[in-house]
This record gives sequence, C-alpha cells and structure tokens, in this order.
Amino acid sequence: MNAPAELTPSAELPAYMEAVGRRARAAAAAVARASTAQKNAALAAIAASIRAASAAIVEVNRRDLERATAAGLAGPLLDRLRLTAAGVEKMAAGVEKVADLPDPIGEVTDLRPQPSGLRIGRMRVPLGVIGIIYESRPNVTIDAATLCLKSGNATILRGGSEAFDSNRLLAQQVSHGLRQAGLPGEAVQLVASTDRAAVGLLVSMPKYVDLIVPRGGRGLIERLAGESRVPMLKHLDGNCHVYVDAAADLAQAVDIAVNAKTYRLFVCGAMETLLVHQEVASVFLPQVAAELGARGIELRGCPATCALLPQARAAAEEDWFTEYLGPILAVRVVDSLDTAIAHIGHYGSHHTDAIVSRDHLAIERFLREVDSASVMVNAPTCFADGFEYGLGAEIGISTDKLHARGPVGLEGLTSRKYVVFGAGQLRR
Amino acid sequence: MNAPAELTPSAELPAYMEAVGRRARAAAAAVARASTAQKNAALAAIAASIRAASAAIVEVNRRDLERATAAGLAGPLLDRLRLTAAGVEKMAAGVEKVADLPDPIGEVTDLRPQPSGLRIGRMRVPLGVIGIIYESRPNVTIDAATLCLKSGNATILRGGSEAFDSNRLLAQQVSHGLRQAGLPGEAVQLVASTDRAAVGLLVSMPKYVDLIVPRGGRGLIERLAGESRVPMLKHLDGNCHVYVDAAADLAQAVDIAVNAKTYRLFVCGAMETLLVHQEVASVFLPQVAAELGARGIELRGCPATCALLPQARAAAEEDWFTEYLGPILAVRVVDSLDTAIAHIGHYGSHHTDAIVSRDHLAIERFLREVDSASVMVNAPTCFADGFEYGLGAEIGISTDKLHARGPVGLEGLTSRKYVVFGAGQLRR
Repeated sequence: MNAPAELTPSAELPAYMEAVGRRARAAAAAVARASTAQKNAALAAIAASIRAASAAIVEVNRRDLERATAAGLAGPLLDRLRLTAAGVEKMAAGVEKVADLPDPIGEVTDLRPQPSGLRIGRMRVPLGVIGIIYESRPNVTIDAATLCLKSGNATILRGGSEAFDSNRLLAQQVSHGLRQAGLPGEAVQLVASTDRAAVGLLVSMPKYVDLIVPRGGRGLIERLAGESRVPMLKHLDGNCHVYVDAAADLAQAVDIAVNAKTYRLFVCGAMETLLVHQEVASVFLPQVAAELGARGIELRGCPATCALLPQARAAAEEDWFTEYLGPILAVRVVDSLDTAIAHIGHYGSHHTDAIVSRDHLAIERFLREVDSASVMVNAPTCFADGFEYGLGAEIGISTDKLHARGPVGLEGLTSRKYVVFGAGQLRR
Repeated sequence: MNAPAELTPSAELPAYMEAVGRRARAAAAAVARASTAQKNAALAAIAASIRAASAAIVEVNRRDLERATAAGLAGPLLDRLRLTAAGVEKMAAGVEKVADLPDPIGEVTDLRPQPSGLRIGRMRVPLGVIGIIYESRPNVTIDAATLCLKSGNATILRGGSEAFDSNRLLAQQVSHGLRQAGLPGEAVQLVASTDRAAVGLLVSMPKYVDLIVPRGGRGLIERLAGESRVPMLKHLDGNCHVYVDAAADLAQAVDIAVNAKTYRLFVCGAMETLLVHQEVASVFLPQVAAELGARGIELRGCPATCALLPQARAAAEEDWFTEYLGPILAVRVVDSLDTAIAHIGHYGSHHTDAIVSRDHLAIERFLREVDSASVMVNAPTCFADGFEYGLGAEIGISTDKLHARGPVGLEGLTSRKYVVFGAGQLRR
C-alpha cells in the first residue's frame, strides 16, 4: 500500500486521486501479464497474511466499532461492520477459494478459419482497473480485491468511512501478499480519504478506471450512476415475480412460492409479487396464503385476491412496484399468461422472474418474452445467485443489459479481444 | 412511420421525443417476440419496397443534393450523401443479405446442470431499443435499421439534416415492409427534426433507449460521450501499429506493412505507425521505404529511422499519437519487443495492432500483452472488419472494452439472459 498513514487533505484530493489512478494503471499491466501460478501464489500469501494479522484486525475493527457506536451508527450497520476472529478466518478461507477458481484469462474461443485464410478467435483478457465503492462491510475489501486480482485486474477500493481503519489494515495484507508473489502492491489500493469528493473523482477518471462496481444500496448506486463517466456494473432493485400458471402443479407451486418468499426475506432474489392465473386462483391462493401466513407474511392483493383471501388487505398501485425486502407480498390474479408477462414488464425490475407450469408453450413464451436478467421455470427466484449458477464467485448481480447481466462472476470482470492468426495473407 | 410530414417545432421537441421513445419501447416488445420467418419476411418486403420506390428515392435525394450544394457542402460530403439507382439497388440487395444471416435471438448456450439439480444456461435476447445517430450517408438508414430488426430490436434513427428527405423516404419503406410482415411500423422511426437538441434528448432517455450507436467522426462521438446517459458503442481512433520483430520473415513483413498502409488509406484499420526491431531495421527499412515511397507515402521517423532513410523527415512527439488516415506513416526503430509493446500501449488507441514474427514466444507475449480490440499475427491491420471476421455484418467497430469490442455484428446488438430450468427444486 502506498496509502499514507494519515488521511489525504481535501485540497490535495484531485492530485492524490490522479496519482492513485496512475499507479493503478501501471500495476494493471503487471497483473494482466501475471501467470495463473503467480496470481494463485499471491492469493495464498494474502490468505496467510490475513491469518497472521487476525488479532490485529479484530482489535482495529473493535476501535472502528467503538467510534461508530459513539457516532450513533444503528444495529444492523454495526453488525455489517463487525469482524470477529471467526469472520477473519472465513475471509482467509474465501481467498483460498478464489485461488481454486479456474483462471479466466488467456482462454481463446471461437477460433475459426475465415475465407481469407486468417484464423480468427477471441481471447479473454482483464478489463484493466476496477473501482469498488462500498459501504460498511470490511470483508468486501478482501472479497472484491481478490476477485479482481484473479481476473487479472488492478483495484481501487473506496470503503465506508466507519470501517476505514479495518479496511486499511486488510488492504495492507493484500498488498503484502501481492509483493510476496512478485506483483506490485499497488495492484490493490485503498483510497486514503473518507471525503465524499474522492468518490466523485474516482468515477470521473475513465483514463485510469475501466469499470466501477458499487456495492451498496439503491441510493448509493443511483447517485453514482448520475455522476459516473466510467461504465458501472449496476445492481438496482430485485422486484421479482413468481407466476403460477393455469397448468401449474399446485403443490409444487405452493412450495416454490413459499421458498421464493421466505428463503431469505432480504435477498434481492426474494419474490415480491405473486401472480396467479384465474383458473387456479380459488384453489391455489388459500393453500399458499395459509403457508405464508404461518410464516408471518402480510398479503396485499388485487380485488380478486382479496375476495378469495379475507386476510389480505387491498394493494395500492405502488405495491406492484415495491421491492419490500421484508415480510410483505403483493398478490394479483391475472386472466392470462399475456397479462402476467405484461405485468412483469411494466412493474418489474428485470432482475429475476419465474413461471410455475407444466405447459410447454406457456413456458416457451415466458422464457422468450420476459425481459429479465434471469428467467426461471419451476424454480424459486431466490436461486438467483452466482454460486448457485456455478460461477464460483459473485462480484454482484447486474440489472443492466450490456456487458454482464444477472449474477456476475470472474467473467464479468473480463473482456474479449479478437486474435487474428495469419501467415502473410494480404487484403485485396 | 408515425413521423409527421413536417419537422417538429423546437418547442415541442421534448414531448415529441418522449412519444418517439414510448412508441419504440412498445414496438420493441413485438419485434423481440417476432419469429425468424417473420423478421425475414419483413426484410424481404423492405427490399421490395426500396426497389419499387427507387426512382422516387433518387429524385428526393437529388433535391437533398441540390440544397446541400447551395448550402456549400464540400465534395466528399456530397459524395456520401448521393444515391444513384445502382446505389439504391445495392441497398436493397444488402437488406436481402441481412435476411440471410443466422438469427442470433433465442439461442441457448452453456446450459449445464448445477449441484441443486437446476439446469442453468444463457439465452441470447435483443437489447430493446437502439438509437442510431449518423451523419450524411443515407444508406445508414437502411443498413442500421435492418441489422437492428434482424437482432430483434426497435430503432430510432437520427440522420444528418442534409439527407433528411432521403432518409425519410427510406425509413418509410422500412416501416412499410414491417407492416406488410405484420410487425409495427414504429419499430423503426426516423426523428422528424433536424434540431440538434433532438440528439441531446435521444441520448438522455435511458428509459426508452438501451444503446446508442453513433456513426460518424470523432467529433460527433466525443460530443455524444460527454452528454450521453445511455450506453454507447463508441468507435474512436484507429491508431494502428505493425511491429516487425527481429525474427520476422522480412519479405513477408514488407508485404504486410505495405498492405496495412495502402489497402485503403482512410479505413480505421490502416497502419499509422510502423515499429521495427533494431536488429532488422537496416535491412528491412530501405526495402519497405522503397515500396511505400513508390506509393506516395510520406515517412516520419525516429532518429534511427532518419539515419537509415534519407527520405524520412523527423517525427515529432505528436506523430506517434496521430491517426493520419492519409498518405503519411510514422516509423520507429525499437530496441526490443518490450519497447514495441510499451509504445503501442502508450501511443496507440487500442484498436488493431499486429506483430510480424516467426518467434513463438514473441508472438505469445504480443498477443497477451497488447491490450487492443484486435491483435494480429503475421497479418495486416487493414483486415479489421466485421465481414472479414465472419460476422456477416458490421454495425461499427468498438474501441470500448465492455460489452462489444472490435468489429460488432448482430451479436453486439444483443444481450444474454440467464435461463433456469427446475422441477420444483427449493433453496435451503
């Protein structure tokens, strides 16, 4: 870490961020060139370094927690900030898991001869420099930095101010591990400023930063999207739907709907609206409502739902747009598959939506016509997750359509360039 | 076309553009759903419609040309604006070629079972609405609209004001063909305004527009990049290099360098700087300089080059950054592969760069370490082109790293969503 021991004064911030960017760009070339063995050696050294510093990390984190408590930080935010010895060990083990992932860099695909005689294919390469902007969780420091490293990128980290000292000590372990493997410590830099202006500068340096990954709430992401001059991997709402078709296996539909809502109330793949075909509503809704009611889920329904379920209160228009992330579910009876698809298109957030049906044609149409990052058949939306998708890691879930869409693993931190192999062919 | 016969007054522009966006979004859903047969039927109808309207198109274009001449438009710009009967026929034939391309939409790849029992893969889907901003060439109207249609997208076209009437008549043929195939005519709309503010509005509607493709000079693209709130497929400079390695076959290197420079002086893949390893410079440079000199190419060299070639004048620092797009070539002698790679990284534009060598290790390093959209081995940079790459079409060449990089065909106008097939699996 080249970061100074003290925070950077605001007046020096533009020059400081420029220097951070320049160092990152220079280090990126070295990391891009690094072999798989060298990157894995760095990851092993980082894990060892974190384990060796465990007591110090917990102690520095305790002081961060004290300051945050004194500053009036609330319970869940304090929980996210806290690092225990077990948490530090989990972090180190996570780094070793990243080392075990296959290296995406250098893979050549689609190599085909063309009429000119040239063989043309695509090689997977790093993006370059990735800026990570996150809130209070210090484990993101390790998580994000190691995924960027494995995918051959340099990283600039900007964590929450309340975790600053924890993040700094963690980032030092990363730089230490990098240097032990013969890679530049500056390949991972933590911004040595808690000034908000540093974020504004970071997202305005397309010369030095190739991608911004914000890890935080919708507020953070919308604010950044408004000012960023660098492409962003945006994760906005997960307003997810399960549509129970006329041809659904209703017992299966109950299980899927209950799991989609209650696996975890706070994950972005949690179901927020249940759509039910009118032909099965009178049988299905009382069954699913009983299960959901037993789990403390409040129902907000359309008029047809409320007529079937006395326990449901009337949904307002805004309910259909809402990602509750809590024990509330909107329920609507629809007259057709078309209405279900139109509802999802209009009110949804294009994150993850599922159909429960045994009707092949209905499934085909739902798959094709629902324009969401993940479209599921006979499975609960809560499966939307990079690990469940076999990506081995997850840097985020993208609700954008370009570049990466849905759960993003190492591949989303890479690009593909064309490689052209000739033997002296000329163009005429 | 819903475009009014008259231009939209400036005061009504925001409401008008909002209406254009809303219509495009609605039409996009229909085009996304359309079968391959339906899209191809529309393309056939568009081609027929263009042919039937040929005389009218040439006549309207003649009046555009007259107005442009009176307004003082220069020779090459007039040439780009001009449509002859043969040009119209070529356009119609181009539409039929787009119909012949494989439909990228609906393809499912990477479908694999996961430990949960879910089978998870990715389906290729349209982006939605694509905004095309172009300068004087009216053939872009047909070209861009039909590529967007084949890839299942709706299009909003904003052409140059001097070609407005030609573009309008062409866009009418497209809408006519769409309707004949049972698709909404609004799937392709031409902005009925020559006001520059319309462009500003178009690039500020992320709600209605998913991608902006600018087709024009660097000035246009840089201006748009500054104001766009919609992702852009950017094509900036092609400052391309050929590096002649110590282990090059020198006869082949002469042919490649001459072809890379002179195939077409004005294409973005034209070589602008020639780098030569010092071990071969004294033999290679006089040979290649004789060939280039015979073709009227002016040489601007580093001191070592000038010492070997009396006809070369000294290059200034800015020459290394310059995309001449003309009969000038910068030449530098380098002491190593490392220096060549560093030169390309520092001065290049990450478009297309080539190595001429028989040394496997040098080739491997060049391929891996040169961070350009296309990296070539023993082939001239002028091959950088979607048709040569087997894409069957080209909407542009991207110098960005995210989403699409290098020559962009139909695939670059699509996205991939996850498709998840279950049989009632639940997440625990």
